[in-house]
Amino acid sequence: MADLHPPLGGVHEASLYVSDLERAERFWRRLGLPLIGRSRGRHAFFRAGADLLLIFNPQATLAVGGEVPPHGATGPGHVALDVPDMTALERWRACLGQADVPIEAEVGWPSGGRSLYFRDPDGNSIELITRGTWGF
Amino acid sequence: MADLHPPLGGVHEASLYVSDLERAERFWRRLGLPLIGRSRGRHAFFRAGADLLLIFNPQATLAVGGEVPPHGATGPGHVALDVPDMTALERWRACLGQADVPIEAEVGWPSGGRSLYFRDPDGNSIELITRGTWGF
Repeated sequence: MADLHPPLGGVHEASLYVSDLERAERFWRRLGLPLIGRSRGRHAFFRAGADLLLIFNPQATLAVGGEVPPHGATGPGHVALDVPDMTALERWRACLGQADVPIEAEVGWPSGGRSLYFRDPDGNSIELITRGTWGF
Repeated sequence: MADLHPPLGGVHEASLYVSDLERAERFWRRLGLPLIGRSRGRHAFFRAGADLLLIFNPQATLAVGGEVPPHGATGPGHVALDVPDMTALERWRACLGQADVPIEAEVGWPSGGRSLYFRDPDGNSIELITRGTWGF
């Protein structure tokens, strides 16, 4: 299928909003994600494979006046990170267990793919999904 | 740098929340993104390159009881989609112009990368960023 739009790689940065940045930072570091940027009271940026997971304090990012347009949401958001295969998904299951992060749900998709869902300390819903589940 | 966590591809799905799904659907289709899933009143899923942009009605996704854990935010979120190079970014600039979508901001990063920012009809902040800006 030819795309109707100019070239696009994919989703490179997804944002989650939290009430306590330091708590979120501890959470993601415990899961092993490398912290690659931080502005105290505003954000903590983590590398997630080839992409970035951006953690923001919406009180700070809603302020007008910076170089980057304001944004900021409240309530539980949702992000899905992909893992290459079922072996990696099982390794993540063990990693979550070791970090005392409960798996809230698990879904087997009709395509044969599989997802695990867990929550960050602010209640954001994080999904780990096997690559290829969507057929591309 | 060796990753401290099990294998991870990247961010595969990012979510935006909107008050009017049909309006959001028209917006993203006008920009050429293929609609790959839809549940009336709940969501519209678009393919964005190798990944997915998920558009949700938070009133519907906050409801408890489905197979997938509830989530749903209010206020302007933020997602960045990556483009392969400056040529693609210029093609997106033209595409946005043809669709009458104003560019809210433009940032040249110290690494040489560049970002364009625009809004969806609900005020979510969308960024188009050249791949490699973050150094990976």
